[in-house]
Amino acid sequence: MPAFGPHLLSLSGMTQERIVGILDAAEAFLDVGQQSVKKVPVLRGKTLVNLFYESSTRTRSSFEIAAKRLSADVINVTPSQSSVTKGESLSDTVKTIEALGADGIVIRHASSGAAEFVAERVECHVVNGGDGCHEHPTQALLDLFTIRKKKGRVAGLTVAIVGDILHSRVARSNILGLSALGAKIRLVAPPTLLPRGIDRWPVTVYDRLDRGIDGADVVMALRLQLERASGGYIPSLAEYSRLYGLSREVLERHAPQAVVLHPGPVNRGVEISGEELFCNDVAILDQVEYGVAVRMAVLYLLMGGRGEESSLLAAGSRGEGL
Amino acid sequence: MPAFGPHLLSLSGMTQERIVGILDAAEAFLDVGQQSVKKVPVLRGKTLVNLFYESSTRTRSSFEIAAKRLSADVINVTPSQSSVTKGESLSDTVKTIEALGADGIVIRHASSGAAEFVAERVECHVVNGGDGCHEHPTQALLDLFTIRKKKGRVAGLTVAIVGDILHSRVARSNILGLSALGAKIRLVAPPTLLPRGIDRWPVTVYDRLDRGIDGADVVMALRLQLERASGGYIPSLAEYSRLYGLSREVLERHAPQAVVLHPGPVNRGVEISGEELFCNDVAILDQVEYGVAVRMAVLYLLMGGRGEESSLLAAGSRGEGL
Amino acid sequence: MPAFGPHLLSLSGMTQERIVGILDAAEAFLDVGQQSVKKVPVLRGKTLVNLFYESSTRTRSSFEIAAKRLSADVINVTPSQSSVTKGESLSDTVKTIEALGADGIVIRHASSGAAEFVAERVECHVVNGGDGCHEHPTQALLDLFTIRKKKGRVAGLTVAIVGDILHSRVARSNILGLSALGAKIRLVAPPTLLPRGIDRWPVTVYDRLDRGIDGADVVMALRLQLERASGGYIPSLAEYSRLYGLSREVLERHAPQAVVLHPGPVNRGVEISGEELFCNDVAILDQVEYGVAVRMAVLYLLMGGRGEESSLLAAGSRGEGL
Repeated sequence: MPAFGPHLLSLSGMTQERIVGILDAAEAFLDVGQQSVKKVPVLRGKTLVNLFYESSTRTRSSFEIAAKRLSADVINVTPSQSSVTKGESLSDTVKTIEALGADGIVIRHASSGAAEFVAERVECHVVNGGDGCHEHPTQALLDLFTIRKKKGRVAGLTVAIVGDILHSRVARSNILGLSALGAKIRLVAPPTLLPRGIDRWPVTVYDRLDRGIDGADVVMALRLQLERASGGYIPSLAEYSRLYGLSREVLERHAPQAVVLHPGPVNRGVEISGEELFCNDVAILDQVEYGVAVRMAVLYLLMGGRGEESSLLAAGSRGEGL
Repeated sequence: MPAFGPHLLSLSGMTQERIVGILDAAEAFLDVGQQSVKKVPVLRGKTLVNLFYESSTRTRSSFEIAAKRLSADVINVTPSQSSVTKGESLSDTVKTIEALGADGIVIRHASSGAAEFVAERVECHVVNGGDGCHEHPTQALLDLFTIRKKKGRVAGLTVAIVGDILHSRVARSNILGLSALGAKIRLVAPPTLLPRGIDRWPVTVYDRLDRGIDGADVVMALRLQLERASGGYIPSLAEYSRLYGLSREVLERHAPQAVVLHPGPVNRGVEISGEELFCNDVAILDQVEYGVAVRMAVLYLLMGGRGEESSLLAAGSRGEGL
Repeated sequence: MPAFGPHLLSLSGMTQERIVGILDAAEAFLDVGQQSVKKVPVLRGKTLVNLFYESSTRTRSSFEIAAKRLSADVINVTPSQSSVTKGESLSDTVKTIEALGADGIVIRHASSGAAEFVAERVECHVVNGGDGCHEHPTQALLDLFTIRKKKGRVAGLTVAIVGDILHSRVARSNILGLSALGAKIRLVAPPTLLPRGIDRWPVTVYDRLDRGIDGADVVMALRLQLERASGGYIPSLAEYSRLYGLSREVLERHAPQAVVLHPGPVNRGVEISGEELFCNDVAILDQVEYGVAVRMAVLYLLMGGRGEESSLLAAGSRGEGL
């Protein structure tokens, strides 16, 4: 298992204590109105580079806003505007970014393992902003934070993750994080959208939506990753929506108390029906809002420059990858 | 008619007093050299998101510079780099941007009504940066400001707007603003480039350029919106230039005192001839320069956080749409 | 020869004293750890516009980071997001950018002479960020700075520039700068990749790599500019690599003491072999790192607002173009 030291690449091997430490730090970045604080000078003079090889509104903007609220300078590098079009390797690109003076790099890349690849090649801090079908740790952290805010705790809750588990880095990171915090995890998906080896994961698998969400405290719909599907069975949107789409009817009947999460962007009418879900607390915008505070916490803990705090993110040695 | 409350979506229904209030505020953002002041901390800790679905150098940069001079953080979101490519709806996009912590959104979109659509869905401030063929209110405000700087007043002036009125959001916003401030408005265009119902507008229509600009105090050339034309008759560039292009000859003969405006970018040799217009005060770069001060004023009045000032932009209830 | 006054367009005609002045200023922007200082308020309230018509990670980001460390506001304008798609002329674009309040413009453009063209049309400071096959002065300055850091001096050193001299703006600027500082310059290239009139340059030309780098203090590999080649003979990558690629073998045998430079991005296995160059000090990342300090110096000297310092960059009248 890799050691993560000064980076946030994965939730694999991260202990409950460390995760709770991040969530508590995020709490400290909320003001009395429960919004992230506007401006603190803790990263003044630091430079964060957003290196996004895949398009993103929410994740890139969330990191940019978080960093600017911490008074860091932010540089956005996107492939179409960069030396990538000149054929430069990822390794050379990130070494160049580090040499330019980056204190941290947030990388999003279509290849699983890209963030770890980068972290092995630079001295500066690396945050995985989503790597292929592998992990998206800050998304899982903000999901955990949202669950804790809504339900007061994570331990002991029943969390149903619904949809395309196979291609979802969000699911992978959440399973690791939820498991570390003691939640009971259900995966709701057709067998064709489950990864191999699922029987070794700390989860219960359901084929049918109604049974999978029955009595759940949290229902997390995944985005149908049409753009990432390559090979494997992909259901039609209509079929997927009929079998796994969250509707008022199924939620009222089976999980009326559930908080509903989605990492966004939602395919309206596919993962979640267009109608209002009256019974339920749909927390999708809360996730976005809390995400800024969580990323402020992550950037502060990594880049804030105090050894004892940075070590909060150093993963333990007991990590078990998926 | 819609009420605009905390937004700037349109000049429809905006009273003379309110418009003058904005222009006066813009005046306060000019330094002794008549350039916009460099740095004031009035929006420190505020976040402005530029959400531009259409490409733009001047409007996007103008808002970005204005916001940075007010010490706001600015996040640029452009469709090709965003979740738009993942099929997210405009409604979800702007709610996400708001949840990220935006205090204000400047939106440019190809669809008329997009800014109002957005304003109905978010709590934060919305500024219309140009919506289809509908309105571009900050452009009209900076045009009014430029006219007032050049001529000392707007009331009573004869302003000739020349060109593709049909597709021009600039023309629509200017007609509303010029009308509110008491200018006499002439539209100079072939009937095919005029909208229906033009006879109900507070304007006089001219088919011929020489008659339309004769004795005018201000001649505002519109950009030939080739990219927005869909259906309808579009003249050839050569024909348009011959009939409606501003040349030294026609200006010297018919409007030697006129200030010449153009919202840019100019199609050189089409709307304005390549030669120097010696007699006339061509104020195109003044428009750009004053635009920053006008947008500083708009952002300050909307986002500055003092209720009594924000109300300056709240439109009255007597608005009459075009 | 043009006088450059408040701009940095070229190293042509720049005296040794002026170049050394810039390098000394860059030295002052390094902290004790030899990295560029993090934040100084010397350009607070100034606006720098990065106008990049060609894609770039390192140069654009380097200027952006340099300007932000000087506390300037930075606006990025790239052609695909700008009015260029509306057919606006370069002249109108830069006049607009100036009117928006830019204190400085860094321009990268595919056409040789674009930076000078711009400088003739605006009052604000212009920095050439690379214009076609003409010049890239800040790259040469950072190369000179790197050489001086590594070797303690430039005068009297033997510097071998290897590769596609014909299409290289980096080579042109370096020849001017190295020559002004008293280095002995060798060009190593096939005749087909040399410009006409090379016999009038202050250089010695070598056809063979082993002879060209023999005993050199500095070996500067150029990027094979496949994207700029139009007409003229271009060797195959394999042939180029075999004849002019820097390998451990050739460097160990002929230039074991040489510092190896490359402007990046490197075509791995073409200009420089994939293997480690054990004997040599490969300073490619040092170039990137020092580049930020050099650009901080350039921006400070140009835009810092003190006449006597700005004049450091004013080129003399004895300039001799290439």
